[in-house]
Amino acid sequence: MSLKSLNTPAALIDVPRMVRNIDRMQQRMNALGVGFRPHVKTTKCQQVADAQIAAGAQGITVSTLKEAEQFYAAGIRDIVYAVGMAPSKLTQALALRRQGCDLKIVADSVECAEAITAFGLEHDEVFEVWIEVDVDGHRSGIAPEDDMLIAVGKVLQAGGMHVGGVLAHAGSSYEYDTHEALVRVAEQERSCCVRAAERLRGEGMPCDAVSIGSTPTALAAEHLEGVTEVRAGVYVMFDLVMHNVGVSETSDIALSVLTTVIGHQEEKGWAIVDAGWMAMSRDRGTQRQKRDFGYGLVCSENGEVRSDYVISGANQEHGILSRTGEPDREIARRFPIGTRLRILPNHACATGAQHPVYQALAGDGTIEAWPRFYGW
Amino acid sequence: MSLKSLNTPAALIDVPRMVRNIDRMQQRMNALGVGFRPHVKTTKCQQVADAQIAAGAQGITVSTLKEAEQFYAAGIRDIVYAVGMAPSKLTQALALRRQGCDLKIVADSVECAEAITAFGLEHDEVFEVWIEVDVDGHRSGIAPEDDMLIAVGKVLQAGGMHVGGVLAHAGSSYEYDTHEALVRVAEQERSCCVRAAERLRGEGMPCDAVSIGSTPTALAAEHLEGVTEVRAGVYVMFDLVMHNVGVSETSDIALSVLTTVIGHQEEKGWAIVDAGWMAMSRDRGTQRQKRDFGYGLVCSENGEVRSDYVISGANQEHGILSRTGEPDREIARRFPIGTRLRILPNHACATGAQHPVYQALAGDGTIEAWPRFYGW
Repeated sequence: MSLKSLNTPAALIDVPRMVRNIDRMQQRMNALGVGFRPHVKTTKCQQVADAQIAAGAQGITVSTLKEAEQFYAAGIRDIVYAVGMAPSKLTQALALRRQGCDLKIVADSVECAEAITAFGLEHDEVFEVWIEVDVDGHRSGIAPEDDMLIAVGKVLQAGGMHVGGVLAHAGSSYEYDTHEALVRVAEQERSCCVRAAERLRGEGMPCDAVSIGSTPTALAAEHLEGVTEVRAGVYVMFDLVMHNVGVSETSDIALSVLTTVIGHQEEKGWAIVDAGWMAMSRDRGTQRQKRDFGYGLVCSENGEVRSDYVISGANQEHGILSRTGEPDREIARRFPIGTRLRILPNHACATGAQHPVYQALAGDGTIEAWPRFYGW
Repeated sequence: MSLKSLNTPAALIDVPRMVRNIDRMQQRMNALGVGFRPHVKTTKCQQVADAQIAAGAQGITVSTLKEAEQFYAAGIRDIVYAVGMAPSKLTQALALRRQGCDLKIVADSVECAEAITAFGLEHDEVFEVWIEVDVDGHRSGIAPEDDMLIAVGKVLQAGGMHVGGVLAHAGSSYEYDTHEALVRVAEQERSCCVRAAERLRGEGMPCDAVSIGSTPTALAAEHLEGVTEVRAGVYVMFDLVMHNVGVSETSDIALSVLTTVIGHQEEKGWAIVDAGWMAMSRDRGTQRQKRDFGYGLVCSENGEVRSDYVISGANQEHGILSRTGEPDREIARRFPIGTRLRILPNHACATGAQHPVYQALAGDGTIEAWPRFYGW
């Protein structure tokens, strides 16, 4: 297979860019003296996870137990399931641990800790639990000074569970676009998470792991004292949201959607392409950022950015390609029917999820199909 | 399987509602004296398409050739591929026709017609081509009075292809929310498409099929004189966008996402659920409509609408459930950890696409897994 022979739309990985992204992050983590645990929810793809492990990652982070099952079956043992544990999923988590998976689960409430403890006692299983810490009011977790932090740890400890660590995610880092702001958020993520660990240790809990991370803070942090590991996901592909945040160039973005021009509305300056929202996803993450790229930024088939052209609208299998600003009345001559283009996505995690398979384009121009899975 | 035993998140179909939606639309089409060709892109699910055919649909509409292949393999022969034909996909279309599939393809430009004709002549195949008509400036197609309409027809006819019909989709109907406006758009869709057919027939082309449709116009049209068939897709499930357009009650919405409460942020009035955007999709179709439902409207596990509660934010596997208006500081008591809820989606086509399988809940409470496919 080669680029020319691919059907469209297709999710294309530029493998040399991906490898560069992986190496850059791993080297940074090595320099900061912390372990690295990539979040595989971005790609759910064995070949990508293998490349991350080969570069030095120690274990992975997952967003679903299905990811844990799939990657454990493929040989990865050290897994953190970084979403608060639903009591009804404990049976599935137990099965993984009984098979030998070193699965860590997460709690951020007394109710959840009690459910884990009761289930663990009933099944004679010592779950390793990490307590989620809220460092920026973004989503889940317990504030580091909240009494609930200790209460959750004590419920787990009293029930014989293993309080293995604390975990935080500075999701708010996506809202900034200057290095100074990201440095500040990164330090807040670090210091809050370390503080939570210290409080738990002060109450006699081991809490060995101090796990933080998001792609922007991982790339901005000036030091990571007290942190044992970092998690990041989207860095492996990057995307237009990360570009607007300021942590990647468009030339770092390893994921694009290959598409074909199928029509025009010349008076409006539109080309119609066969990548609609089904291929791009409905993610409009750049909508409120410094540049709104619509449903994606247009590149030539070979990947050169056509920076004035975006996918300005999308239906299920139709994308509307137009020039920003003045309509391009020459659009039909510029992009005739049959023209193939690559579209850089807003959000690599969302766009990847629309595709059963990645087409991995190596530096020598060969293409390999890398399957990805989905569902729960 | 029963509702209680399902893992979450899960895409749930309320089968009695689905059957009612199918019957209502089919009866309306029968009364209007037109054929009905449902768009199966909404569900990509054999069981749903079978129910549509059993109710009286004559053939189906698809948005990808993969849908055509899958549904032809499952026994449906009469298929319209309603996206402008990319020349590079003609080989795939030819293969379907050679297997016996009565596949109709679509063109809206001279270039596309020339490509179809050249390929047809080369492979000794008479493709049946429908010409796409633009009735509202929404997306693709040729305006009914445009000279290009006749030019496209003549290229096809001169090359021995079969000009089988015209096809239009009043996509702009989604932008209205009064019956009067929808009646007007429906009449515009009808009259423009009929006019295009008359012009082609006047030039000696057969153009037997006059195919129009969108769910809102199909439900609003007062008469369909000159139309031979209607296409509609989302009516089979309905969703919150259609509810805002005014063509369905929330009690008609047959698709929901079953989810579990996994945490709280009591001060903010948030419950965290395990349906994030991966389960709901990133579709925010109600964002600019008369009521913005965030990522979905909350219902009890049994389907009763909790009309003040929506999914106000979403990360990949986390949804933030909150009350509209004043934060609900009682949220942890109202929706304790482990509570199961159904979330009605913005857009059934987008939400369905996130799930490998529907869980079909029958009137007697039993559940059947109905697989759906994706990709190209």
